[in-house]
Amino acid sequence: MISIIPNRAPVMQEVLYCPQCAHRLHQAIPDGDHAERSVCSQCDYIHYLNPKLVAGCIVEYQEKILLCRRAIEPRHGFWTVPAGYMENGETTAQCAAREAYEEAEARVDDLVLFASYSLPHISQVYLLYRGTLRDGAHAAGSESLETRLLHAEDIPWQDLAFFVVADALQRYLQDRQRGHFAHYDAVVEHDAQHQARLVSYSRVG
Amino acid sequence: MISIIPNRAPVMQEVLYCPQCAHRLHQAIPDGDHAERSVCSQCDYIHYLNPKLVAGCIVEYQEKILLCRRAIEPRHGFWTVPAGYMENGETTAQCAAREAYEEAEARVDDLVLFASYSLPHISQVYLLYRGTLRDGAHAAGSESLETRLLHAEDIPWQDLAFFVVADALQRYLQDRQRGHFAHYDAVVEHDAQHQARLVSYSRVG
Repeated sequence: MISIIPNRAPVMQEVLYCPQCAHRLHQAIPDGDHAERSVCSQCDYIHYLNPKLVAGCIVEYQEKILLCRRAIEPRHGFWTVPAGYMENGETTAQCAAREAYEEAEARVDDLVLFASYSLPHISQVYLLYRGTLRDGAHAAGSESLETRLLHAEDIPWQDLAFFVVADALQRYLQDRQRGHFAHYDAVVEHDAQHQARLVSYSRVG
Repeated sequence: MISIIPNRAPVMQEVLYCPQCAHRLHQAIPDGDHAERSVCSQCDYIHYLNPKLVAGCIVEYQEKILLCRRAIEPRHGFWTVPAGYMENGETTAQCAAREAYEEAEARVDDLVLFASYSLPHISQVYLLYRGTLRDGAHAAGSESLETRLLHAEDIPWQDLAFFVVADALQRYLQDRQRGHFAHYDAVVEHDAQHQARLVSYSRVG
């Protein structure tokens, strides 16, 4: 199993035993499959590794953007938009709204999907929405040190937690200035120095 | 663990034992978390359940659409566009291209993200691209009974495998007719009779 830490290299965790019957797993290509998996010879359990979905939102109120300063690792003390791992049973927009409430006690409306990012080096996909803050109210949730509504010129670009957040905020502000929001689909990879960089993007709208 | 079968109700599988140390798991809310998880009191392993990402593509060649007739369950014998579960280490577009090759031996170009669908009742997110078939060549891969390039009027609407595929193909053909492709973000749920229906969508472009 790979434990995903945002914007860090994946940490390999051992998946040694079958979660269904506790038998020792072994490596094999299941029938009809194309890749090696950890499988159980006792109960036929197959352990699949799949990318994780992160959903979040760029939230605006009176032309200001809602940012949270992280109270957790990775990137403790750095600024981000509300975002987090999607849970079973919710939609991507519900996840974005839930994260806004958990991290910034913010009620968000009018969510429209703004950008998708594949981060293959950490097996994550980000789906970032844009939306509005319902009543201007916000406060630090348990994962935030503080929350702020900031004008574009006050965004702490050097202290943003993640490359994806910086890239999405730049595109958002550019689109806002031209008066028309597009949808972006992008790929971010890490170079040999573990620096994130945009390797491709396409735009619709 | 939930074993996801597309467009069917999730099948609950028991996750009873720790995959790291084979100790019996129990239910608890981890520190700083908001939901109950299966956790290990011996090695602190936490079992997270996350939605699965499916990526696929609507592929066109000389105004015809590439469809595959499924050789596997669910929906054996019904028609679909190439699509499948995303693997670790790939981008969403790479997944769509890989599935086109695996299911239809098709080489695809010019992939642009066309539609996102949340299916919360089965904890899946579909990301469907649109693109072109490189050289007109296609053939049934191991998961397909046959593959065909079909004009819009020949698409077997009554024999499509999944609601999401039918919805995306309709939007694609409408957009092609108006000469301009948008990006769609939609939510599909099941009603009490397990019939899929579109409960919301937004459009950019």
